[in-house]
Amino acid sequence: MTKAPSVNHVEVCFSPADYALYESGFDLVVVIDVLRATSAICTALQNGVERIKPVATVEEARLWQAKGYIAAAERNGAIVDGFDMGNSPVAFNSKSQQLKGQTVVLTTTNGTKAIDIASNKRTVVIGALNNLDALSSWLLKQDENVLILGSGWKDKFNLEDTICAGAIADRLLGSGKFIADEDSTIAAKFIYRSARDNMFAYLKASSHRRRLRKLNLNEDVKYCLTPNNVSTIPILKNGYLVPLDEDPAANQ
Amino acid sequence: MTKAPSVNHVEVCFSPADYALYESGFDLVVVIDVLRATSAICTALQNGVERIKPVATVEEARLWQAKGYIAAAERNGAIVDGFDMGNSPVAFNSKSQQLKGQTVVLTTTNGTKAIDIASNKRTVVIGALNNLDALSSWLLKQDENVLILGSGWKDKFNLEDTICAGAIADRLLGSGKFIADEDSTIAAKFIYRSARDNMFAYLKASSHRRRLRKLNLNEDVKYCLTPNNVSTIPILKNGYLVPLDEDPAANQ
Repeated sequence: MTKAPSVNHVEVCFSPADYALYESGFDLVVVIDVLRATSAICTALQNGVERIKPVATVEEARLWQAKGYIAAAERNGAIVDGFDMGNSPVAFNSKSQQLKGQTVVLTTTNGTKAIDIASNKRTVVIGALNNLDALSSWLLKQDENVLILGSGWKDKFNLEDTICAGAIADRLLGSGKFIADEDSTIAAKFIYRSARDNMFAYLKASSHRRRLRKLNLNEDVKYCLTPNNVSTIPILKNGYLVPLDEDPAANQ
Repeated sequence: MTKAPSVNHVEVCFSPADYALYESGFDLVVVIDVLRATSAICTALQNGVERIKPVATVEEARLWQAKGYIAAAERNGAIVDGFDMGNSPVAFNSKSQQLKGQTVVLTTTNGTKAIDIASNKRTVVIGALNNLDALSSWLLKQDENVLILGSGWKDKFNLEDTICAGAIADRLLGSGKFIADEDSTIAAKFIYRSARDNMFAYLKASSHRRRLRKLNLNEDVKYCLTPNNVSTIPILKNGYLVPLDEDPAANQ
């Protein structure tokens, strides 16, 4: 006899600061940092980076760098002094030959902090607009409650992570296999639906896009706001982000 | 010579849990708890209640009650045992004759907690959809940065306070006298604009409306979602909420 399919919850938590209010009852967390950490992580693993070691601080990244690892570090939108890379997915694309098969150590302002906070859960996967459909399809097969955690900006709500969280929630809720109880989830879904037809214009006023525009990172922003240009779902395994193997046996 | 008008900030903070992230730079805070504390406060003062003493705990409310004050206490949507009133604006309306000229002590699950947190500021005023236009017009005359604080639900984001905050922000931003930097403010404005033509339907799925429906409080919900049925702007003075006197000299 097959198990009757159960109805699970999908909920959205806007920022790491709110995580303690939302995490109860979830064993699976999706971490999102559209601009730009999780977009870069999806892109790097899609391009053949073997694994990414997310670390919370620049100091940790320097220690790994000193041991000979390739390290990438971003703070406030810029590459940290002493590192060759930050969290630009466009840069991860252009360096894909040299990064193939490598371990990359990564620290960013918000995204790696959110991954660190979520690592108390059994399953942590990485979401972005870039892997939206691949991730949503996989989540629909899991028969688990799903908490979507936006990385925010220094613990504050941000618009682009909420749009992406709303896009995932919309797909899961639309299947009839998921329900949502939290107003944050309902709001994220509404915001996504208002934004989806022209995300670039919708985010015109967003604080982080303004921040990146000042740094001449419009090419990165365009890339990060492009849905479904990669199919990789990064998953946290023993402290490293690796491409999820869709064979369930391989993910035990 | 008259002072050149300056451009001020209007920003939205979704919940008391986020207040510390947003409060810097603001001397004026608008506290919102649409369902139902701030709607009840506006209604009570409009109807002739002389002043409202907001207190954070049920214990404090009991102490005031023991001294002979009329006290109202709500927790989780229901009137607390031992009190005659909770935070129903419809009840404040129906008891308006007996409450005229009285001091009422009030404690609620979220709203009075938010007022308590905001009381570190020079000016605290009370907002609801019920006094939307009166409050917005007054704010437009203040030449001050305005922080709009939603009371949320037990520190979580809620939809109805965000809609009301977005309505106020939309009016202030539309004047050209205010700007917004935070993504929370942009999101609140977008949510209000999606919701404004049918707020009742928009909030159908909201967690708090479901909570109140179970308690048969749909009449209260309809009242609270009706814009501009009162013109009173409650303001905190020496620990009491009183109707704001529009004569600036009276508010020194």
